[in-house]
Amino acid sequence: MLNGHEVDRLDLYEAGFSPVLTAEERAGYYGTPAPGSDIVPLQMRLMSTEHLVLVFPTWWFSVPAALKGWLDRVWSPGVAFSQGTPIVPLLTNLRSVTVITTLGSPWWFDRVIMRSPVRHMLKLGVIDACAPRASFTMLSLHSAETASASQVKKFMDKIGHTLGRVVRKG
Amino acid sequence: MLNGHEVDRLDLYEAGFSPVLTAEERAGYYGTPAPGSDIVPLQMRLMSTEHLVLVFPTWWFSVPAALKGWLDRVWSPGVAFSQGTPIVPLLTNLRSVTVITTLGSPWWFDRVIMRSPVRHMLKLGVIDACAPRASFTMLSLHSAETASASQVKKFMDKIGHTLGRVVRKG
Repeated sequence: MLNGHEVDRLDLYEAGFSPVLTAEERAGYYGTPAPGSDIVPLQMRLMSTEHLVLVFPTWWFSVPAALKGWLDRVWSPGVAFSQGTPIVPLLTNLRSVTVITTLGSPWWFDRVIMRSPVRHMLKLGVIDACAPRASFTMLSLHSAETASASQVKKFMDKIGHTLGRVVRKG
Repeated sequence: MLNGHEVDRLDLYEAGFSPVLTAEERAGYYGTPAPGSDIVPLQMRLMSTEHLVLVFPTWWFSVPAALKGWLDRVWSPGVAFSQGTPIVPLLTNLRSVTVITTLGSPWWFDRVIMRSPVRHMLKLGVIDACAPRASFTMLSLHSAETASASQVKKFMDKIGHTLGRVVRKG
């Protein structure tokens, strides 16, 4: 418990999560869902989440395969959204999403040249589709491989400040 | 053999490829590489490739976890690039990259709203870093879930035309 919040920590590596959407899952994707037995409990946890915090290293200007597979397999129709034009959001419990990431490249390369692909994917592609009312905050430590101790400390402080605000929101 | 080219087909699903970069691989990423035993043969195949064709469905405005993990694990320092400022490309054999993908959203959403995150990631983030001299072509079938038979046929013709050009290049 943290300020009246129950903390549900999921480490995809520790959990041995398999990120590969199966042929069965794909075949039933828009019809009768057939999620793997490892998936249903993760979907229950997602559906009951009010404040989602995603923590990952950015690799190749994208989320690691483990996290991508969590989106591919767990955020399925009937759980995260309903198919339609436009798409119908189902994660109505979700009130905030905080993304915490590190990346090797400097901020200008990520934003100006690359056009913030991780932010666009997560904010506009995923969260706006499944939980459009959730607030979205992204904290990125750029040039992480050469960051000084004081830059890391500043980033940690920013994380503390942001999560403190989320916790106080209730 | 196809017009004097040897075709090396890799189906990541069929191969049972595990896309999760391991703790050992991460620990040695910039130091002494310790790729899993499943990875070295895939790295040899990548290094000998002249014309790379990536075929995948776009899910959540990103590549499937299996393909992301192929980038995370196989395209490592010492194989695809050398760390440095700027990064040193190592895939000097690679002469062309063709990306063939389908996605559910219409073209304007992918390009105008999302800013082509898959294209930016693959072209600017990956290929320009590891094989800057390779030509890059991306063929996307937008609104794929509602595409008519004639739209699919047109897309198939475009694929045939593009790959025919690659093959004739020698």
